[in-house]
Amino acid sequence: MNYPNGKKFQKPLEPHGTTMKNPRANASTFSNRGMKLEKLINESNTFYLTHNRAIIHKKPTPLQIVQVDYPKRSAAVVKEAYFKQPSTTDYNGVYRGKYIDFEAKETNHKTSFPLKNFHPHQIEHMRQCVAHGGICFVIIRFSMYNVQYVLSVEHVFPWWEQLETGRKSIPLDQIEQHGIKIKTGAFPAIDYLEAVDELYFT
Amino acid sequence: MNYPNGKKFQKPLEPHGTTMKNPRANASTFSNRGMKLEKLINESNTFYLTHNRAIIHKKPTPLQIVQVDYPKRSAAVVKEAYFKQPSTTDYNGVYRGKYIDFEAKETNHKTSFPLKNFHPHQIEHMRQCVAHGGICFVIIRFSMYNVQYVLSVEHVFPWWEQLETGRKSIPLDQIEQHGIKIKTGAFPAIDYLEAVDELYFT
Repeated sequence: MNYPNGKKFQKPLEPHGTTMKNPRANASTFSNRGMKLEKLINESNTFYLTHNRAIIHKKPTPLQIVQVDYPKRSAAVVKEAYFKQPSTTDYNGVYRGKYIDFEAKETNHKTSFPLKNFHPHQIEHMRQCVAHGGICFVIIRFSMYNVQYVLSVEHVFPWWEQLETGRKSIPLDQIEQHGIKIKTGAFPAIDYLEAVDELYFT
Repeated sequence: MNYPNGKKFQKPLEPHGTTMKNPRANASTFSNRGMKLEKLINESNTFYLTHNRAIIHKKPTPLQIVQVDYPKRSAAVVKEAYFKQPSTTDYNGVYRGKYIDFEAKETNHKTSFPLKNFHPHQIEHMRQCVAHGGICFVIIRFSMYNVQYVLSVEHVFPWWEQLETGRKSIPLDQIEQHGIKIKTGAFPAIDYLEAVDELYFT
């Protein structure tokens, strides 16, 4: 099966009712859509850290741990745990003396970004951080076009507020108008801080 | 068995070679010493959040997930995971427009705080955050006295640097001299931001 753009349909990696044994598994195996973007951002964060440009880390996936084994002479093993709803965004840190906080989302849609990709608590968290002087934005990836935008949360809030009664998504042309398209490359993979400079430091 | 101060000796909760089944288990079951302080800080952070004073969260415990089961019609279950060394400190957020980053440590010692409580990467992370304009400190609890101090990392670095050849701990009188003793109460449990105000905003 192929998409109209000629790209091959990718079977989701995690069918329900099965067991996955994968040493690199993490929460994004949950929703494979987010994996590509997460990889790009993590690589970029490592680049920024190495080059002393910013200190930004992805937060670990929150797990509710239920059972831990302590085998003799071996490391403790978590034997039962469940994924928890995170109460914040995935990424934060410090850049140019400012608190930075953002969420990264990926969509297969072509003309708009569905708001259901956000959890209410993520929006609420970013609203609080902005109120306390933090810089908050979202990185939105349109995977069909292989493009990423930095969009200030101030341009997300109005869409979120009309969600109940109005549109369920942010039109791509609005993201293009108010956001900054992120330059891609090898080092860093995606230079989202350049977009942040343009939005917040000029 | 009682300590000289009359407090009962508490048996560690996590003997090796056993299984713990506890829905509230988390990484601090690893080192029970840290549990009391973590609880005090989490309660205080919730208070600060509720009262719109600061947005500070504890990061989730980093786990290396090896195996996940996806039972039909039920939530995904992590069946095998291992505790990972965190690459940052446990707490960060935004306060008065500034990036806040800190680590919290507890000791049973009476006259000094052993530097081995810090991991090298935690010190390195705080050094980086300070260089980028963040406010970094440690909260040190002396459990025998039931007291907590906020100590700016600038007063930790010199001790860390002489660790190989010199003292293995920071004397309590130095912590008393350069740190701020945290006021305790019910709301918040420990008012560490008041100490932060005194150290960084006066």
